[in-house]
Amino acid sequence: MKDLYRIMRDRRSIRKYKPDPVPAEALTTILSAGGLAPSGANRQPWLYVVVDDPAVKREIRRLSEEADARWNAEQPAGFRSWLRQQDIAENAKPFLEAAPLLLCVFGRTGEPYWLESTWISVSYLLLATEEQGLGTLTYTPGYPGFLNVLLEVPESFSPQAILPLGYADEVPEPKVRPGRELATYVHKNQFR
Amino acid sequence: MKDLYRIMRDRRSIRKYKPDPVPAEALTTILSAGGLAPSGANRQPWLYVVVDDPAVKREIRRLSEEADARWNAEQPAGFRSWLRQQDIAENAKPFLEAAPLLLCVFGRTGEPYWLESTWISVSYLLLATEEQGLGTLTYTPGYPGFLNVLLEVPESFSPQAILPLGYADEVPEPKVRPGRELATYVHKNQFR
Repeated sequence: MKDLYRIMRDRRSIRKYKPDPVPAEALTTILSAGGLAPSGANRQPWLYVVVDDPAVKREIRRLSEEADARWNAEQPAGFRSWLRQQDIAENAKPFLEAAPLLLCVFGRTGEPYWLESTWISVSYLLLATEEQGLGTLTYTPGYPGFLNVLLEVPESFSPQAILPLGYADEVPEPKVRPGRELATYVHKNQFR
Repeated sequence: MKDLYRIMRDRRSIRKYKPDPVPAEALTTILSAGGLAPSGANRQPWLYVVVDDPAVKREIRRLSEEADARWNAEQPAGFRSWLRQQDIAENAKPFLEAAPLLLCVFGRTGEPYWLESTWISVSYLLLATEEQGLGTLTYTPGYPGFLNVLLEVPESFSPQAILPLGYADEVPEPKVRPGRELATYVHKNQFR
């Protein structure tokens, strides 16, 4: 088994997926790991909807692309150009259909530190996915509200991310970490 | 070395610390792990200030207790009573002085998904701390803005958490996980 730091170092965002299904045991392990996250006042505010129905995945892709196109169109021109440079403005989201599973992650608003806690649970899901030899990607549509309607999730749960889940059909570039030297983000006693 | 799931299962919030210093190598490992987190557009929006100066720790404790008292006083009576039941309204924060180190975590506002990314990095710090045999706690003062002033961190960085770091001087209760059965937070294709 790979150690914690190796898992953290090796994890990359995967955008291309094989059609092979996610083994049930691996899925259970990943979902259980998400539930081990600490949370504000131990309120465990996360909710996951596992989507494997091809028709629902297709609809999630369609509505995500629509939401992203709308979101992108509303950004200032300078920001849109910056987005394109970052390669995050690309509207087509084929991975939402190609991945055998989508994990739709919601957080229950109003719980103490619900957003922070939900994202700790997302990171537990990311690490467990890597540990299981599967790939994923942290994707959030520009306007994710359609997920409540489509999946019939009450409005009190805020959609936070869609994590496609499956075996990688690409070998991502090694992690480029410009500026990840400790001195660039660690200071001692004061910022200066 | 403990495996990923064991680390996730064993991690508990620690409120009592031994005075023994954190070994430099362990600290470097933990800080490096935080920097391995994925982030929106790879912008790595986190910033850590490591505080080991006793005078600065004392001031952080004083201002945190002040901020929490103010925050608590402003909550509605029903919510305050609920907070007391959850044991999170206790104003005294001795761990902020007792722990040999405080990791003050900031996120650079304005970066894409800066808050989500910063909390993924917090969770990497939590797991690495456990792996190193050290203890920590995710603590956020009610009004954390004083951290910018005290540590001279620009306003563009939003204070997110103070993680005390040190060897545990308590054996926490085994994790109580009411409602952590998968069925309570996992749904399939639809919420129902």
